Amino acid sequence: MDQKLQGYIDKLNKLNFKDMYEGDFFLTWEKTDDEIEAVFTVADALRYMRETNISTKVFESGLGISLFRDNSTRTRFSFASACNLLGLEVQDLDEGKSQIAHGETVRETANMISFMADVIGIRDDLFIGKGNAYMHSVVDAVTEGHRDGVLEQKPTLVNLQCDIDHPTQCMADMLHIINTFGGVQNLKGKKVAMTWAYSPSYGKPLSVPQGVIGLMTRFGMDVVLAHPEGYEVMPEVEEVARANAAKTGGSFTKTNNMAEAFKDADIVYPKSWAPFAAMEKRTELYAQGDQEGIKALEKELLAQNAEHKDWSCTEELMETTRDGRALYLHCLPADITGVSCEEGEVDASVFDRYRDPLYKEASYKPYIIAAMIFLAKQKDPAGTLAKLYARAAERHVQ
Amino acid sequence: MDQKLQGYIDKLNKLNFKDMYEGDFFLTWEKTDDEIEAVFTVADALRYMRETNISTKVFESGLGISLFRDNSTRTRFSFASACNLLGLEVQDLDEGKSQIAHGETVRETANMISFMADVIGIRDDLFIGKGNAYMHSVVDAVTEGHRDGVLEQKPTLVNLQCDIDHPTQCMADMLHIINTFGGVQNLKGKKVAMTWAYSPSYGKPLSVPQGVIGLMTRFGMDVVLAHPEGYEVMPEVEEVARANAAKTGGSFTKTNNMAEAFKDADIVYPKSWAPFAAMEKRTELYAQGDQEGIKALEKELLAQNAEHKDWSCTEELMETTRDGRALYLHCLPADITGVSCEEGEVDASVFDRYRDPLYKEASYKPYIIAAMIFLAKQKDPAGTLAKLYARAAERHVQ
Amino acid sequence: MDQKLQGYIDKLNKLNFKDMYEGDFFLTWEKTDDEIEAVFTVADALRYMRETNISTKVFESGLGISLFRDNSTRTRFSFASACNLLGLEVQDLDEGKSQIAHGETVRETANMISFMADVIGIRDDLFIGKGNAYMHSVVDAVTEGHRDGVLEQKPTLVNLQCDIDHPTQCMADMLHIINTFGGVQNLKGKKVAMTWAYSPSYGKPLSVPQGVIGLMTRFGMDVVLAHPEGYEVMPEVEEVARANAAKTGGSFTKTNNMAEAFKDADIVYPKSWAPFAAMEKRTELYAQGDQEGIKALEKELLAQNAEHKDWSCTEELMETTRDGRALYLHCLPADITGVSCEEGEVDASVFDRYRDPLYKEASYKPYIIAAMIFLAKQKDPAGTLAKLYARAAERHVQ
Repeated sequence: MDQKLQGYIDKLNKLNFKDMYEGDFFLTWEKTDDEIEAVFTVADALRYMRETNISTKVFESGLGISLFRDNSTRTRFSFASACNLLGLEVQDLDEGKSQIAHGETVRETANMISFMADVIGIRDDLFIGKGNAYMHSVVDAVTEGHRDGVLEQKPTLVNLQCDIDHPTQCMADMLHIINTFGGVQNLKGKKVAMTWAYSPSYGKPLSVPQGVIGLMTRFGMDVVLAHPEGYEVMPEVEEVARANAAKTGGSFTKTNNMAEAFKDADIVYPKSWAPFAAMEKRTELYAQGDQEGIKALEKELLAQNAEHKDWSCTEELMETTRDGRALYLHCLPADITGVSCEEGEVDASVFDRYRDPLYKEASYKPYIIAAMIFLAKQKDPAGTLAKLYARAAERHVQ
Repeated sequence: MDQKLQGYIDKLNKLNFKDMYEGDFFLTWEKTDDEIEAVFTVADALRYMRETNISTKVFESGLGISLFRDNSTRTRFSFASACNLLGLEVQDLDEGKSQIAHGETVRETANMISFMADVIGIRDDLFIGKGNAYMHSVVDAVTEGHRDGVLEQKPTLVNLQCDIDHPTQCMADMLHIINTFGGVQNLKGKKVAMTWAYSPSYGKPLSVPQGVIGLMTRFGMDVVLAHPEGYEVMPEVEEVARANAAKTGGSFTKTNNMAEAFKDADIVYPKSWAPFAAMEKRTELYAQGDQEGIKALEKELLAQNAEHKDWSCTEELMETTRDGRALYLHCLPADITGVSCEEGEVDASVFDRYRDPLYKEASYKPYIIAAMIFLAKQKDPAGTLAKLYARAAERHVQ
Repeated sequence: MDQKLQGYIDKLNKLNFKDMYEGDFFLTWEKTDDEIEAVFTVADALRYMRETNISTKVFESGLGISLFRDNSTRTRFSFASACNLLGLEVQDLDEGKSQIAHGETVRETANMISFMADVIGIRDDLFIGKGNAYMHSVVDAVTEGHRDGVLEQKPTLVNLQCDIDHPTQCMADMLHIINTFGGVQNLKGKKVAMTWAYSPSYGKPLSVPQGVIGLMTRFGMDVVLAHPEGYEVMPEVEEVARANAAKTGGSFTKTNNMAEAFKDADIVYPKSWAPFAAMEKRTELYAQGDQEGIKALEKELLAQNAEHKDWSCTEELMETTRDGRALYLHCLPADITGVSCEEGEVDASVFDRYRDPLYKEASYKPYIIAAMIFLAKQKDPAGTLAKLYARAAERHVQ
């Protein structure tokens, strides 16, 4: 047995994640620490196996259904890559091409697409109070369908971003941090600045900042959430962050001062998002089909954003971080000053310097998604890894 | 050998379906009884093998081309599932993205997409006299292309719904009936009510009622076709139904009275469709690009529909069926009163009670499609099943 | 070992194409004669193996990314077929569904879609000076991404048509010629007429005529480029053609007389294209977003085209070719007089007579693309072919 792979297997054997089998992945804070670590471990193991040309195809056939209710490049390709890595063929449920608009219920559609689906990945992040709830309806439907003999298998749900959390993104961010800092054991006391940043666009989801404070507070780090007044995130997620910090000996604090957040930070994550209250209002306006109201709100929000153009990740601010070289994170694409917009979230020179680590950060996402699927579908994940190694099928026959 | 699988193989060995090899599937009544039974048998066998985690992948590579000229969720996913189950990758011919509009002939396009295609699935149900004819042009083109050495293989055509028949739907419905009633031998004398039902939409294809009367009259059942005056289906299909009934000792009758059809029925299939004559007129209007005419016809048809709102599958009507509990069928999605529309095809309480069997009915479709492909592409289908069992490749490596 | 396959392997063993490994395919004239011959040889070998039911799947998993910036049927399906033949799953980067419009750079997108991509196929032919340059940016980005550890592998680029060349089309055309004339050794002195032809549409890319003169001048043939005044192609490609001809003992000449080009020709390729200068102007107008200018240019170009309706491949002209039966080529779809338009590139009777060879011509494209991928991804292509033969996995289990 390969030593490195054996290391991953040994780690898994020490963790308790048996409840993940036949489960789903909605929010990181619904998972235990062992479960979170299992995802990281399997992600690293799958990546290592692909790098060493060992096929990790556990499915000879089967579908991975994707449903994107918002545009996407990287998550779409990450999901497709993850499915492909495990042997599943992606079928996109394009609601435009389907009959869904013509009166199908969620319950019905969920079953109709799942006869041979092993995984369903959903992005539904635009409306507060809707996305996560929708994912639960889908899971309830297919669980029932499986129980009643309609579906041969219960597909596992992977939350590809909802209104509350963006678990595949934040776990990719976190795995990038862990690997950059040389292991979880080195994170204690590290300062993370999750800060709002100015963008000339509006209505960006809150799921990234929420996901970040909900996850990164679990590792004994000092997490600071910074934003201008009025850009509050969901209070229940702040509550999660506070509880996490209390448990792990780290801290969760808030500030309306970007400089304060950046001061001596080891990790910075400056990113735009819409105010929670505005997103709620927007959800209502859409529900009412109030086009005038939507336009007025957009205008209002852009004006509100424009009052905070000084919230930008500049070279000056970066200077104030730990040794002037905090790890800069972003979920991409970023609004780069002078590149993608006149004034944006980050200076072009800062972004350019971190391009390579940013791409590496993104490169974890397919493996995180694959790990979530693997842990939900394999009864004995550690055993399967060993079996795949022993099978020794090449990913690419040379 | 597994006993249950051996049973399917034994059954196949008693049937004559050799003409299906390298053939196509257009209309159920173009197939012999043995051929129809072969489809059901292979469908059951493939389902059983998937349930018992035996891979039925007979293609290492190859494409399954889908062409949907009408929106679709369930048939699209059923086709994708069927292809995937056998090892074929689906490629959708999206006419919007292609150059077809720019002067390609059917003959040319059919060959251009088929270089590595093992199956082509087409839905073309909107225009009377067109869909089935189009499918024949495609088959003629690829047959010629294969004969002339352009194509390494002749892809098999699966009719995913045309203007005349909806064979994958109706055979899924039928297999559901067979399995619900415990076998074909129990169907003699059962009463089937294929009835029109009110829907606030217009222009629904006739292929389901036509497919149902064309298929279900082959099993010795008493099939009643009920609809308001003016909602006649294609006379040549009624002829087929009549001939079928005469041959099998069942009956095919017509009525303009829904209650009469439901009375003591064992199986009911209440569903909206457009009048045949109106569909013909519509086809002409579209051919002429007569937008005004199309709108006027739509208005007229909706008004005509509205005169028959009493044609609905109510609790009261269900009471009058055999023991008050006929098997309720629908191809889905249904127009449910008070759910997807104010007044529709079926009472919400009736639909709800049958949700589970309805989903099971739908769950046969991927296997029916896979069986049609299997029978057209495998020279010795029974032998292949045995070989797949012996190969013992897992569908999902656990 | 199979004799025919051994012949292909022997041929490969005499060629030097080691620089193709981990390379890309942009323009045919950037490749050596040995490299071009290697593509033809591998294409023939892969086709032979598929015909004899030997699986050529070298990838257990992996993605083939396609990006079509212009409508496409045959190239889209050819790329999908090629990827599928080698075991790669196609994922289409649909820029409409992605966030690319929202400020992603080419560098970023190229990396974000490539985490598990083994090949990227791009069609970007609409704008002079843009398409090929874009492909180079993509390759630069993924090369850097691979070097920096972001990507586990560097995907190979296949140019599916740019503003300069259409290598997969022209190499399919050329392989068709080689196989029709019984081998490269029989081509010396053959006359090829690449001529402009009238079409009622405008703005067709120049990449086909350019690709044809850039490639076909390499085989000792006499290549004539014919077009009305004002329909010049890129001068640098004419330079390539001239240099090729000088080296191989063939010739490259130009004329403004279609009849002269057809006279005694062994091969004719009559096809419409837009004037180079007009395409340049168009590119600028699009860059400026000048809708009025674009419309005016379109009108002007259509009028200019209409002055040359006599440039058509008629029966009379075909009569003047070698024995009245030159090999007629077209990349399809053609503008056929009286079929797809009133007056077009070719008489219906001519086109009909050549339908079968035209389809065969097209049928080489998937194999040409697969060969390009194979040569870029396999370290020892000849060795892999032998290994695949020895593995003896069936493409279709019978």
